[in-house]
Amino acid sequence: MRAVCRSIACCLLLAASPFPALAEEGMWMPGQTQDIAAALKQAGLQLDPARLGDLDQPPLTAIASLGGCSAAFLSPQGLVATNHHCVYGSVQYNSKPGQDYLTDGFLAASLGDELPAAPGSRIYVIEDLREVTAAMNRGLSAKMDGLGRTKRLEANRKALIAACERQPSRRCDVRSYFGGAQYWLQQQLEIKDVRLVYAPAGGIGNFGGETDNWMWPRHTGDFGFYRAYVAPDGSSAPYARENVPFRPKAWLKVARGGVQEGDFVMVAGFPGSTDRLRTAAEARFAFETYYPAYQASLADYAARIEKATAGDQDATIRYASILRGQQNYMKKTLGQMQGADRISLSARKAAQEQAYRDWIAADRSRAGFAEAAAALDRVIAEGQQADMEDLVLGKIGRAQLLAAARTAYRWAKEREKPDAEREPGYQDRDRRPVEERLAQIERRFAPKVDRALFEAALEDYRRSPAADAAFLAALDRVGLDRLYAETRLGDTALRKAWLDKPAAAFETSDDPFIQLAVALYPRGMERELDAKARAGREQAARSQYMRGMLAWAQGQGRSLYPDANGSLRFTYGKVTGKQVDGQTWAPFTTAEGLAAKQTGKGEFAAPQRMIDLIKARDYGKYTHPALGTLPVDFMSTVDITNGNSGSSTLNARGEFVGLAFDGTLDGVISDWSYDAASNRTIHVDSRFMLWTMEKVDHADRLIAEMDIGE
Amino acid sequence: MRAVCRSIACCLLLAASPFPALAEEGMWMPGQTQDIAAALKQAGLQLDPARLGDLDQPPLTAIASLGGCSAAFLSPQGLVATNHHCVYGSVQYNSKPGQDYLTDGFLAASLGDELPAAPGSRIYVIEDLREVTAAMNRGLSAKMDGLGRTKRLEANRKALIAACERQPSRRCDVRSYFGGAQYWLQQQLEIKDVRLVYAPAGGIGNFGGETDNWMWPRHTGDFGFYRAYVAPDGSSAPYARENVPFRPKAWLKVARGGVQEGDFVMVAGFPGSTDRLRTAAEARFAFETYYPAYQASLADYAARIEKATAGDQDATIRYASILRGQQNYMKKTLGQMQGADRISLSARKAAQEQAYRDWIAADRSRAGFAEAAAALDRVIAEGQQADMEDLVLGKIGRAQLLAAARTAYRWAKEREKPDAEREPGYQDRDRRPVEERLAQIERRFAPKVDRALFEAALEDYRRSPAADAAFLAALDRVGLDRLYAETRLGDTALRKAWLDKPAAAFETSDDPFIQLAVALYPRGMERELDAKARAGREQAARSQYMRGMLAWAQGQGRSLYPDANGSLRFTYGKVTGKQVDGQTWAPFTTAEGLAAKQTGKGEFAAPQRMIDLIKARDYGKYTHPALGTLPVDFMSTVDITNGNSGSSTLNARGEFVGLAFDGTLDGVISDWSYDAASNRTIHVDSRFMLWTMEKVDHADRLIAEMDIGE
Repeated sequence: MRAVCRSIACCLLLAASPFPALAEEGMWMPGQTQDIAAALKQAGLQLDPARLGDLDQPPLTAIASLGGCSAAFLSPQGLVATNHHCVYGSVQYNSKPGQDYLTDGFLAASLGDELPAAPGSRIYVIEDLREVTAAMNRGLSAKMDGLGRTKRLEANRKALIAACERQPSRRCDVRSYFGGAQYWLQQQLEIKDVRLVYAPAGGIGNFGGETDNWMWPRHTGDFGFYRAYVAPDGSSAPYARENVPFRPKAWLKVARGGVQEGDFVMVAGFPGSTDRLRTAAEARFAFETYYPAYQASLADYAARIEKATAGDQDATIRYASILRGQQNYMKKTLGQMQGADRISLSARKAAQEQAYRDWIAADRSRAGFAEAAAALDRVIAEGQQADMEDLVLGKIGRAQLLAAARTAYRWAKEREKPDAEREPGYQDRDRRPVEERLAQIERRFAPKVDRALFEAALEDYRRSPAADAAFLAALDRVGLDRLYAETRLGDTALRKAWLDKPAAAFETSDDPFIQLAVALYPRGMERELDAKARAGREQAARSQYMRGMLAWAQGQGRSLYPDANGSLRFTYGKVTGKQVDGQTWAPFTTAEGLAAKQTGKGEFAAPQRMIDLIKARDYGKYTHPALGTLPVDFMSTVDITNGNSGSSTLNARGEFVGLAFDGTLDGVISDWSYDAASNRTIHVDSRFMLWTMEKVDHADRLIAEMDIGE
Repeated sequence: MRAVCRSIACCLLLAASPFPALAEEGMWMPGQTQDIAAALKQAGLQLDPARLGDLDQPPLTAIASLGGCSAAFLSPQGLVATNHHCVYGSVQYNSKPGQDYLTDGFLAASLGDELPAAPGSRIYVIEDLREVTAAMNRGLSAKMDGLGRTKRLEANRKALIAACERQPSRRCDVRSYFGGAQYWLQQQLEIKDVRLVYAPAGGIGNFGGETDNWMWPRHTGDFGFYRAYVAPDGSSAPYARENVPFRPKAWLKVARGGVQEGDFVMVAGFPGSTDRLRTAAEARFAFETYYPAYQASLADYAARIEKATAGDQDATIRYASILRGQQNYMKKTLGQMQGADRISLSARKAAQEQAYRDWIAADRSRAGFAEAAAALDRVIAEGQQADMEDLVLGKIGRAQLLAAARTAYRWAKEREKPDAEREPGYQDRDRRPVEERLAQIERRFAPKVDRALFEAALEDYRRSPAADAAFLAALDRVGLDRLYAETRLGDTALRKAWLDKPAAAFETSDDPFIQLAVALYPRGMERELDAKARAGREQAARSQYMRGMLAWAQGQGRSLYPDANGSLRFTYGKVTGKQVDGQTWAPFTTAEGLAAKQTGKGEFAAPQRMIDLIKARDYGKYTHPALGTLPVDFMSTVDITNGNSGSSTLNARGEFVGLAFDGTLDGVISDWSYDAASNRTIHVDSRFMLWTMEKVDHADRLIAEMDIGE
C-alpha cells in the first residue's frame, strides 16, 4: 500500500465498538490463531494453526519489519523481500546524476557490491510478543484523575521498554489493544546494517504510477530486496565493511508453482492502524465533521503549494513529495468518505453498537459496562472539539523551520528531566529519528514557498478561537520579513546543532523562529496536558467498555481481533476476483495486459527488453497453467492496511507466493469497517518476480540463494 | 456525452489524413449507407440499407437536432426524446425556490401543463442534405491567393444559405467534408416553440454525477422529453398559448423487448467534430505541444477560479458551470493524451499516412496530390505557431465584460456592411444567439472574481511576443481599478443595448471595457485576415490531398467517411461489453447495481420510491430475460462523439431501444483514431426508461401516446 494515509484523526483518538468477526476478516494476533483454528482449517490451511501463531517457529521467525513497511527473509543469507516502494528511499539515496537507479533499477553483481541503504534504514526481526497488561496497570486506581492515569501508564510503559531494551540491539514497544483492555510488549532484533541488493527498474516497480495507484487492473512489479548484515561475531552493528550477512532463524521457501484462483493465502505483517472498534459517535464525527474539514484543508494546502511553486522548477521539485503526500491523503480520504456512504457506515455502526449496548442493558450485573459506555461517550464528545481546533492550529506546522524550532526546544525542555521521565519521542532512544527529521528539511524547503504557505496558514490560525495570543504577539513583533531574513535555521548544520543546546539558550536566542517556538511552548503544554487528562479518562472508560465487548463476544462463541496498531498480525483469505454490477474483476492480470498499457513514457514505461520478452512470450517455467500466460498481479480477500506493505504472501503450506502492496480505492473504508464485497488486497505474483529476476534482470545470484520449490 | 469538449484545437484547424475504415467503425453520411450495404446486412440490419439513407423515409424522418444535442420523435404528437442533460437547461430555467424540478424532476400532467423550454431552445427537424460542391467552388481558381479563396468560399456559402433560408422557418448550413473536397447543404425545419414535457428526478437523470461521468459501470437514467409545438396552421411559430403539437412525418416505434447482448444497434445523430483525417504532423502537434499546453492552461484557470471564489457562496455558484466545464475539458483532454499514448497514435498515424503517400509516389500521374501534400504540410506548420499564440492571447477573454464588449463592437462593425457580406456569426440570422450570449453573463459574473481572473490572464498575455501593444497601452492608461469601477457593462440591459449602437458610439464611449475592445480591434482583424489567408491555402491543399485519398481508397474498394462536422451521420455496431486484462465489462448494468451505489446523498441519490421498487423487484414486463432483472444502461460499439448526445438508439428493424449519452474515458481518443478494443458508447436502456415512466413517475399519458411494440 503506497504512501498510505496515517490520518490525523487516526492518531488523535485511540480505539472501540462492537464487531462481528466475519469469516476471512481480521488482523489477528499470532496468539489468536488457535481461537480461529477451525476456520483456518476450513479455509484450506495445511499447517497446524498452533504453529502459525508461534513466534519461535517458521514461518513467523522469517517475518521482519522495516518500520512502516513489512518484509520477510527469503534466504539463509539474510536476503529480505519487500515492496519496491519500501526500498525506494534507498534507491533514491544511491542515485546521482549519471547513475539513475530509480529509472534503471539496481542489481548488485556480488555481495561486495551491495550498497548501504538510506541513512536510518533498519530491519527489525520479530522475536517476541508478550502480554504485559498487569504490569501496565500497576499503580492504577479508579480514583486517579485523567492526567494521573496517563502519567502512570506512560511511566509503566517506559519502564517495560527500558527493561526490554537493556538487551543488546533490541527495539521494544508496548502497545494498547482493545482500547487498553490489554497491553502487549513486542520485542524485535534491530539490524542496523541494511544494504540494497536489488530493485527492478522504476518502470517495473512503479509501473502505472499514480494513475494506477489504488486501482485494478494493476500491473505493478512492486518488489525489491534488502540484505541484513551483522558484525562478524553475529551481533547487530552499524555499517562496516567487514560485516557479514545475517543468518535468520528461518527463511521462506518460494512456491514456484504460485497460486491459482480460489487458493488459500495468508499474510503476516505489521498493519499500522484501523478504526474498526470505534464507537458509532466516533464514526459519525469522523465522516460528517472531521474528514470533510480535513479534506478541505488538504485541498487548500495542495492548491497553495502548487501556486507558490508555479514556474519555479527547483521549488516544484522540493515540494513534490509533500504535494504528492497531500494528494494521496485526499484520494484516500475521498475514497473513505465515498465508501462510508456506500456501505452505510453510520447505520451499520449504530446497529452493531446497539446490539452490544442492549446486551449490557439486559443484565444488571453489567452496570459497570454501562457506566463505562456513558463515560466513554462523554470523553469522546469533549475530544472532538479539541480535534477540530488542532486541525486549524496544526497548520502553522507548515512553516518547516517553525516546526523544527519547536521540536528542538521541546527536546531541550525534555532533556532537563531524567531520560525515563521524558515524553515518549524525546528520550535518548529517539534521538536518531528526530535528527533525521530536522535534516530532511534541507531537501524539502524553499523560503519563498514556506513563507507563502505560512502566511496562508496564519490567516486560518488567526480566526481560530483557540489561537495562541502569546505566539501571535511575538509574531507581530518580529514580522514575516524579518522572520525569514534573520533566521539561521535554514542552515542544516546550525538547525541540528540546536538539539545539543540547553533550553536557556533558546530563551535568550535572537533567532526569530526560535523565539516563536518559545512563545508557543506554554499554551502548547497546557493543551497537551488537557489532552493527556482526556486520554487518561478515555483509557479508563474504553478499556472497561472493551472488556465488556470481549465478554459479550465470548458469550456468543465469537473471537474479536483488536484494531491494527503497528504490531505483528496475521490475516488469511483466498485468491479471488470480484463482481460489481456491469463489471467483473478477474483475480489475475497478465504480462500481455502490462504490454497493452505500455506507452514507453511517463508512468507506463517498462524497460523495452521486458516488453520484447512479453512479445516473444518467453515465459519459461513461470506460466500460470490455467491462464496460459505469465501472471503479474493478483487479488485476494486478505485483510490488510497501511504498514502491511511488503508483507510476504504465503500459501496453505506457508510458502512464499508474492508480496502484498496495495488495496483498491473502494476498499479503503475497510479501515473503519470490513466489507467483504469490496475489500481486496493486491499482490505482486512470485512468478512475475522470478521471471523478472531471471529473464529481464539476470539476477541469477539471488535466485540461486533462494529456496525454490518445484 | 455530457458537457463534452469542443476543444479549441478542434476549431482552429480543419481536417485530413489516411484511414482504413474498419468494420463497424464510422460516422457515415446517409448517402453512404448503400456503399456499406453488405457490411450492414452482415452485421444484422433487417431494413433495406437504401431506405436507411433516405431522408424522406423513416427512420431518418423521425430524427431531430436540438443544436448541440441530437433527438428523435417518439409520438405522432411531436414528443421528442433526448438526454436528461440535453433538457437540463430547461429544467433549471423552470425551477425556482420551492419548485426544484432539477432535484425532484418534472412531469406535465397534461398538454396544457407543458412548460416553455429555456429561451433559445429549438428543435431542428432534418429535411434535406444535398451536395453543393460545384456551387461552393464557383469562382475559385488556382491563381487566387489564400485570402481571396477564403472570401470567395464564404460568399458562396452565404449565398447558398441565404437562398435556402428564403423558405420559411428553415435553418440551413453548408459544411465542408473531406477538407473541402466536398460541401453539403443541410436543411432543417426550425421549431421555435419547444416545451418541457418530462424530466425524471436529478437523482435518476444525473445519477452518479461527475464521479461516474465517462465511466463504466454506469447507472444513469439520462433521458428527458420535449415536445415540438407549431401554430394552429402547422407552420413554425414562436411560443404562443394557442400553438398545437407538431405532427412529424414519422416517429420511432418503441421496441419494448429492448436489446440483448450481441444485437445489432444503430444511431443517427449529429456528431460535432472529430480529427481522424488529420495528418500525422497535426496529430503530433496536438499531442506533443498543443494539448499539454491547453491542459496546463485549463488547470491554471480552474485553480484560479477556485481561489477567487473560495469562501464566497454566491461567487462559487456563479462560476460553478464555468469551473465544471474546465474540469470536464481537463478530464477529456487527459483521457485523450493517455489514449494517444496507449494506442501509439503517432506511430499509427505515421504508418497510415506513409501508405497513402507511397501510393502517391508510385505513379507520376499523381504529382498533383504530391504537391498538395507538400503545400498542406507547409500551411499546417505555419498555423501551429498561431495556434500556440492564440492559446495565450485568448486568455483575456476570461474577462467576461471585455469579451462582451468585443462581440458588440464587432457586431457594430459588421453591421456597417450589407448582411450578405458580414462575417459568419454576425449576420442578422445570428442575432439571437449573440444576444443570449451577452445576457447569459448575468448569471455567471462576479466583478471581484472576473478581475482576479483577468489579472492572472494578463500576466501571461504580457509575456507573449504576440501581445497587442495598443490594447496594453489602453489598459495601462485606465488601470484595473477604474476599469471595474467605471464600466456600465455589468448591467445586462445596458450591455445588450450596445448591439443596437453604431461603431462610432463605441469609438467615443467612455466605458473603459468598450475602449479596450476598440483598442483590440485593429490587431485582432490583422490576425484574423492572416488566419483566413492560411485557411484559404489550407483548403486548396487539403481538398486536393483528400481527393487523392478518396481515389486511393476507392482503388482498394474501401469507403471513407468524412470527419464529424455537426451534420447528420449514421453509425452502427453491436451490443457488447469488453475485456481488458484483469477485468471484464459486462454489456448491461442492472437496477440492483443502481441500488447498490445508492447512498441517498450527493451524486448517488435516486428517489427512495425507485429504490423501494427495486428492492421489491417490481419490474413488471421490463425484465431482461437473460439477465433476469431490469437493465439500466448498456454498452455498444457504435461510433459517436460530442453532439450525438440524445441520439435514439435503434435495433435492426429501426425501432427505439434506448438513448446514447456517453462514452468511456479510455475511448475518447476515438476523436482522433477509432480503436475497436476500447471504443464503447453508453446508452440508457428503453426498458429502464419505460419502467421509470410507468412505475416511478406514473407518466402514463406519455406511454399512451407512444407506439410500443410487443
